Amino acid sequence: MKALVYHGPGAKAWEDVPEPKIEQATDVIVKMDTTTICGTDLHILKGDVATVAAGRILGHEGVGTITEVGSAVSDLNIGDQVILSCISACGHCEFCKHGVYSHCLGTEGASGIGWIFGHLIDGTQAEYVRVPYAETSVYKLPAGVSPQLGTLLSDILPTGHEIGVQYGQIKAGDVVAVIGTGPVGLAAIATAGLYGPSRVIAIDLDANRVEQARKFGATDGVLSSDPDWKEQVLALTDGLGVDVAIEAVGIPATFTMCVDIVRPAGHVANVGVHGKPVELALQDLWISNIVISMGLVNTNTLGTLLKLVAQGKIPAEYFISHTFALDNILDAYDVFGRAAETKALKVMINA
Amino acid sequence: MKALVYHGPGAKAWEDVPEPKIEQATDVIVKMDTTTICGTDLHILKGDVATVAAGRILGHEGVGTITEVGSAVSDLNIGDQVILSCISACGHCEFCKHGVYSHCLGTEGASGIGWIFGHLIDGTQAEYVRVPYAETSVYKLPAGVSPQLGTLLSDILPTGHEIGVQYGQIKAGDVVAVIGTGPVGLAAIATAGLYGPSRVIAIDLDANRVEQARKFGATDGVLSSDPDWKEQVLALTDGLGVDVAIEAVGIPATFTMCVDIVRPAGHVANVGVHGKPVELALQDLWISNIVISMGLVNTNTLGTLLKLVAQGKIPAEYFISHTFALDNILDAYDVFGRAAETKALKVMINA
Amino acid sequence: MKALVYHGPGAKAWEDVPEPKIEQATDVIVKMDTTTICGTDLHILKGDVATVAAGRILGHEGVGTITEVGSAVSDLNIGDQVILSCISACGHCEFCKHGVYSHCLGTEGASGIGWIFGHLIDGTQAEYVRVPYAETSVYKLPAGVSPQLGTLLSDILPTGHEIGVQYGQIKAGDVVAVIGTGPVGLAAIATAGLYGPSRVIAIDLDANRVEQARKFGATDGVLSSDPDWKEQVLALTDGLGVDVAIEAVGIPATFTMCVDIVRPAGHVANVGVHGKPVELALQDLWISNIVISMGLVNTNTLGTLLKLVAQGKIPAEYFISHTFALDNILDAYDVFGRAAETKALKVMINA
Amino acid sequence: MKALVYHGPGAKAWEDVPEPKIEQATDVIVKMDTTTICGTDLHILKGDVATVAAGRILGHEGVGTITEVGSAVSDLNIGDQVILSCISACGHCEFCKHGVYSHCLGTEGASGIGWIFGHLIDGTQAEYVRVPYAETSVYKLPAGVSPQLGTLLSDILPTGHEIGVQYGQIKAGDVVAVIGTGPVGLAAIATAGLYGPSRVIAIDLDANRVEQARKFGATDGVLSSDPDWKEQVLALTDGLGVDVAIEAVGIPATFTMCVDIVRPAGHVANVGVHGKPVELALQDLWISNIVISMGLVNTNTLGTLLKLVAQGKIPAEYFISHTFALDNILDAYDVFGRAAETKALKVMINA
Repeated sequence: MKALVYHGPGAKAWEDVPEPKIEQATDVIVKMDTTTICGTDLHILKGDVATVAAGRILGHEGVGTITEVGSAVSDLNIGDQVILSCISACGHCEFCKHGVYSHCLGTEGASGIGWIFGHLIDGTQAEYVRVPYAETSVYKLPAGVSPQLGTLLSDILPTGHEIGVQYGQIKAGDVVAVIGTGPVGLAAIATAGLYGPSRVIAIDLDANRVEQARKFGATDGVLSSDPDWKEQVLALTDGLGVDVAIEAVGIPATFTMCVDIVRPAGHVANVGVHGKPVELALQDLWISNIVISMGLVNTNTLGTLLKLVAQGKIPAEYFISHTFALDNILDAYDVFGRAAETKALKVMINA
Repeated sequence: MKALVYHGPGAKAWEDVPEPKIEQATDVIVKMDTTTICGTDLHILKGDVATVAAGRILGHEGVGTITEVGSAVSDLNIGDQVILSCISACGHCEFCKHGVYSHCLGTEGASGIGWIFGHLIDGTQAEYVRVPYAETSVYKLPAGVSPQLGTLLSDILPTGHEIGVQYGQIKAGDVVAVIGTGPVGLAAIATAGLYGPSRVIAIDLDANRVEQARKFGATDGVLSSDPDWKEQVLALTDGLGVDVAIEAVGIPATFTMCVDIVRPAGHVANVGVHGKPVELALQDLWISNIVISMGLVNTNTLGTLLKLVAQGKIPAEYFISHTFALDNILDAYDVFGRAAETKALKVMINA
Repeated sequence: MKALVYHGPGAKAWEDVPEPKIEQATDVIVKMDTTTICGTDLHILKGDVATVAAGRILGHEGVGTITEVGSAVSDLNIGDQVILSCISACGHCEFCKHGVYSHCLGTEGASGIGWIFGHLIDGTQAEYVRVPYAETSVYKLPAGVSPQLGTLLSDILPTGHEIGVQYGQIKAGDVVAVIGTGPVGLAAIATAGLYGPSRVIAIDLDANRVEQARKFGATDGVLSSDPDWKEQVLALTDGLGVDVAIEAVGIPATFTMCVDIVRPAGHVANVGVHGKPVELALQDLWISNIVISMGLVNTNTLGTLLKLVAQGKIPAEYFISHTFALDNILDAYDVFGRAAETKALKVMINA
Repeated sequence: MKALVYHGPGAKAWEDVPEPKIEQATDVIVKMDTTTICGTDLHILKGDVATVAAGRILGHEGVGTITEVGSAVSDLNIGDQVILSCISACGHCEFCKHGVYSHCLGTEGASGIGWIFGHLIDGTQAEYVRVPYAETSVYKLPAGVSPQLGTLLSDILPTGHEIGVQYGQIKAGDVVAVIGTGPVGLAAIATAGLYGPSRVIAIDLDANRVEQARKFGATDGVLSSDPDWKEQVLALTDGLGVDVAIEAVGIPATFTMCVDIVRPAGHVANVGVHGKPVELALQDLWISNIVISMGLVNTNTLGTLLKLVAQGKIPAEYFISHTFALDNILDAYDVFGRAAETKALKVMINA
């Protein structure tokens, strides 16, 4: 079969590889119907993720159809169309029992990390993929939800929802600021509405992106390049700061911006993937009663979000900016890699 | 009357000052029965707290007897013996309505801070004190609880409980580490038991203090001067780290120790008062699903803790290391200021 | 001044009475701008509420302008336009400290009930009203919110929200059923959307009311007169029942309907005012892991809902079905008393 | 092998039956080391549980050693000594994903009930037992915990903890009443201490049992046969009622007692197995802001309780009143069936 293979920093190829086989009784094999590219895939290609070995098939998102089931799989059948979670959860380790699938200790995720697709095992940017722990890691695609919308539930929507909105503890009436309106920031905005905020403020350097965020549910927008951006944000509150600030960029400056605009007893939820340490001004903050959270998605709300997408309660369709055929995945990488220019959000890659 | 007056960095005196008077309809005047000294008072005397003006009477803890009530006070009467909260809460501002008394916006705490005694208004190290917002800021001392035990409820027990234990979200079965076993660390240890942890590990540089922590409820102790202190802590867990790490020192090194021993999905609760920024290794931590909290006590659990002290459910009596007469308050300062040598925890000063 | 006075079962009059005066330092006097009638007022007039004495001015909802303030009132001023909560909260009793204003033990609500307006003290269907515990019981009307919309925040919206939606613990993705689509049922529907349900099913005997509920946010409707109403409800779930069933009628039959359609681990939230006991089938239910809640509104979310109404996040305007001048309040009673016929929801009565 | 077989109402035998075999890839076979008898087993023998067919091996509690593992079992090995949960959880159905194992929809629990041992499949009062869904339904016995203590974690301790204490939402400082001090009431008392109550009041008809409850953590006792029992209970509160009332008998009278002593905003947690409906006085209660819960244990806290038992944090050893050899299981039934006379709590039956 064909697959997108990582060949070390800067190198990838759409090439022939052997088809995957059932290895464990709890596996299924899935023929991919739709996959997509994540910002993390670009990081891997730059060589930023040392744990990805050359030869690895990339990708951790997508919807496919089951073609083979392991002997212990009872509730999934050949022909079922399923959403693959980006997190593989054994379902019975200490972390999985508490819903912390992100740190599954299952034998295939020996390092204590649930993200293994396109990382520690072969991923979803391929014609077929082996899916471990299938019954605890896939969701049947309901009638009325397209494989493209389903693909948004593999990672991006749960990440914005769980790490941004839920860890940020948004509650009814809150004023929420989201700094960074790329796909994951927009996913936080799109799912924040499920918790009844009075305002959701989109903050970005790019005026077009700030404006675009309104489609996803932002009620207000602030340009972070404005010298008085902070005053603009505070003016949208009662003057005391936002209840929840969500960091969706991944650099020290935007993290500090979040800390600067949050009110006493507020929450800073970090969603961004950082490459450097940040300085936390504890000499001022120790007295401020704020909470700072961070983490990798558990996808333990995938099923909930799926029900909401099926009922049209999340503006998910706007995430799909481009569509490609699977054979043209290299074009998809090109477009997604130049997102600032192409305005790519999620590029759908259909078999 | 006599009071302990701050006269600028390094200078204090036990001297004659005018008696306080009712200023607002919601005030009461209290004759102090017992007061104590807080580490914060020492900071003020060093000049570390710029918002304290020379001439201020210090102190924010204690139990006293009401001698006068304002015209709007209906449920408190002359002769009532009451515990004074270190936080003055107007009871009706945006923060008070949500229990965030620490950031009360009441007119006397114009800066948005509920700690005003011995800070922005005259405090409790005096024969009499004016108590603003009395009905929302004092608690009647029940029969069977001494003024000395009651004094522990003004600040130290609620601080350890709210900022350490509650913000740390200790739950049944958790393994908890408390770094720093001074009074506030011990208050966290003493109240952690209310949440059913399986282990409470006391960590300190001083072997005597680690040992002493067992009286307060610690189940295990680790000397942070041991080169393998971290391995010792992890060995008391399932190897994956503690569920909750409480910082009760206030320096970057101990904050970082907390981050280093907490497991994925765990909590770091900062209680220490910091003077410098800390470096947060977000490049590693963004994926770790931890929560970091901090803040000033709300004393919104003072009533709850009082019920528990009255029932003997908190080992509070061990906090009282020394007792002085009010006229000898300068001796009390001397002993408390040399705590490492005198082994002072809370020094009780009785009228 | 003029006021609507209860003269015993079946008897009321719009008549001259003395103007109210400040009695406590924490009181304010308010000139009513808008008031309304609650179903409870009709119950009182029938003689169903024995604790209401003849001679009492009725009414517990409305918006007015402060004309006088007590000596302890610091943050409210003459001329402030305020929403009156239907619950008078002293702000410092054991219940108020925990947000349970419904059971305030304040001296004027000596019976341990926070609802005293038009019940134990004179109410709001008058030209002026004395408001006890003003600073903890009124909210300033913000610019852009009309007194009519503000009046909806005195009781009906907080009741649907707190006793229906919050006690029902609606969470993202839930399927919610509301049985009874009178004003309080509609208030539950209108505020359920703040918690991200996937479906909100309106259930009523009246097809017009079921249809009308869609304006308030219902996604589906079922006629309870249909013999297969239960099957229709279950068909809108995964077959296992609804997550949350809200009772908003107040008779045994509708309470039992709620219990019959809720899934294991679901919630039944009773909002209806009942006059008879219900039979609870514990012989079947003990194993069902359901939670049943009930209660009187605390209005502790009044401020939150006000922010949301101000931002247009709650479809509040549809509640206002009729408008009267204060002098015509008897006509308003007539129309509201024949709601089935007049289709009255909330009748606004403006000074 | 030998097993205790149900032969219809009133009839049981310790007799030879075929040994169980692996049926599903996720099964294990366990040789029982210790088992026990539950009140439910007595109900079954009376014919009260219609879903138990004649020929069924009884028992749903115990500790045993794995002798065989299914092909999909990766983390359990032959020779592992394990605690069997009374609930068999598939780990991936809609209910299991949310921790509601009690209503597992797994294929063997087709009726939507997680309790299948000694009910819908053969149970643990036997030399060997087949354990379905092993990896999500058993817990390895740690060093230092005896099989007898481990057996208490199969059902009785989690039931008291989850359905009594957790559903009752006991929080620090609460006054808790437990009505009925049989094994499950004692399990609620023994685990209530994990949540920091200020008082735990044991209420029973039997003075010896009330006294005995103190060993398990009760701070006070009241005889329900005293005419003023209710006044005695209220006198142990501030006069307003208990925060949490736990029903652990299973008859209408004790349920009503709970409702009668709970304060506004309090919780009634029903743990008792009821055979008749109860009358709920909604005409009085609709205004009382109470919460009523009920349900079957999920055993989702088994692991947590196991850690606490291992650390000596739960007074579990007092539950073991008698010990028998497996071959004498009929004697054990005799003693347990006359508990009032024999003072039996949990009778341990060792292989």
